[in-house]
Amino acid sequence: MRPKPDWADDPQETIVRYRLLVAYDGGAFAGWQYQPKLPTVQGALESALERLCKHPVTIMGAGRTDSGVHATGQLAHFQTNRPRPVKTFLKALNATTPRTMSVLDVQQVPAEYNARYTAFFREYHYRLSDAPVPCPLERNRLWHLGPERLDDGAMSEALKTLLGKHDFSAFRASSCQAKTPIKVMQKLELVRSGNELTITIGANAFLHHMVRNIVGSLVMVGQKRWPVEQMEAVLKGRDRELAGPTAPAHGLYLIKVLDGYSP
Amino acid sequence: MRPKPDWADDPQETIVRYRLLVAYDGGAFAGWQYQPKLPTVQGALESALERLCKHPVTIMGAGRTDSGVHATGQLAHFQTNRPRPVKTFLKALNATTPRTMSVLDVQQVPAEYNARYTAFFREYHYRLSDAPVPCPLERNRLWHLGPERLDDGAMSEALKTLLGKHDFSAFRASSCQAKTPIKVMQKLELVRSGNELTITIGANAFLHHMVRNIVGSLVMVGQKRWPVEQMEAVLKGRDRELAGPTAPAHGLYLIKVLDGYSP
Repeated sequence: MRPKPDWADDPQETIVRYRLLVAYDGGAFAGWQYQPKLPTVQGALESALERLCKHPVTIMGAGRTDSGVHATGQLAHFQTNRPRPVKTFLKALNATTPRTMSVLDVQQVPAEYNARYTAFFREYHYRLSDAPVPCPLERNRLWHLGPERLDDGAMSEALKTLLGKHDFSAFRASSCQAKTPIKVMQKLELVRSGNELTITIGANAFLHHMVRNIVGSLVMVGQKRWPVEQMEAVLKGRDRELAGPTAPAHGLYLIKVLDGYSP
Repeated sequence: MRPKPDWADDPQETIVRYRLLVAYDGGAFAGWQYQPKLPTVQGALESALERLCKHPVTIMGAGRTDSGVHATGQLAHFQTNRPRPVKTFLKALNATTPRTMSVLDVQQVPAEYNARYTAFFREYHYRLSDAPVPCPLERNRLWHLGPERLDDGAMSEALKTLLGKHDFSAFRASSCQAKTPIKVMQKLELVRSGNELTITIGANAFLHHMVRNIVGSLVMVGQKRWPVEQMEAVLKGRDRELAGPTAPAHGLYLIKVLDGYSP
């Protein structure tokens, strides 16, 4: 049984909730979610907060990113009966967590705030390269697919067929625990800069591996192994077997989560 | 004594010279220059080429970057009596060197070509950040100096006083072996994008630590510890003791070397 927190005996204490904006290099962690004996972002934050707050702390994140997935805009919340100025939390957390992660902002939020359930929009970037030779400074930062040039025009067209409210079962991992496969795709962009492609995908929420499965299918279009129309056919088929392979984790970035509480 | 290369006994062989364009993550190497028992870029290239060419190989680079300094445009040359198609060298070198470096291009060049002496212009970037909290994805990729905002306008002004032909002794490391401290500064730029500053410095040649010493002095201006005019006074004083501290290696990138042989 989990030990009873010491503040439970002190009815005079008020419990305060904080919202954290977090960035991390996904390559340094076995994902967001706590796992015993493995470096996880949640685990690193919880142990730093427990040392600070002197009671058990549970952090909840807006998105449970997989091992290798990066973030520059992850949100999380926790509560404590040892409130401190937000600047104190910011400084102490950055001083006691590994250099492979940063807490970018700390805010006090109302008790009803929940990083996972209050969030109404999530935005991911996926970075691809078709450079003839991989750039050593970008290893573990993008998916290198060169030397054949990806047809970004065709990929852009295929991407746009996903806009709006759909059943995304075709891009859902078997491990996914979401209640519904129906999500609302609100933002879809593909930008080429030289040999680098950045795909932006924003929706109210995502299924497990959904962005990586969409990117894997887009690459089939970019490599001309699929016609553009196949993307829509795969979506409508709602069958994971019809979609492309799962793109690797290290090209994926959780960029932004909107919850109405941004400073 | 170095073993005699096997081609020395075969007067019928022709010797062919090749030019390499090389990129690397400086954090993975103890610098460009060969050192026994340490991972160096020169060492990695030479041992890969010796396996391919089956004789001792000496590589010469256009710039001997220090440990931690990155490159996306380093040039080098070597020669062999076992010529192969340039695509074969490109593929074999990328298959046998570490993932922390890439050979971006291989070209056959005339016997008089010399990566160091043929080069007439070198361009470096130095990346700085004054973000309130360091970005974990940019650790070892830029010099984080936040949270105080750097005065980029003043830094830009100070930088421009270096344009043209000068004696750069003020920015010369004591270890420097260059014949002359007089260099011609041809390109100077400072661009801010959000919290990130990129300083571009291009000259015919550089003294040891020259870019890092210039950046260390610019930061004194950016932090308002020096007036803009002090940059010119330091340059004219020609005394290393008057200049600012040496900026760390991991913000520096060798971006471009011009030798008239670019494809």
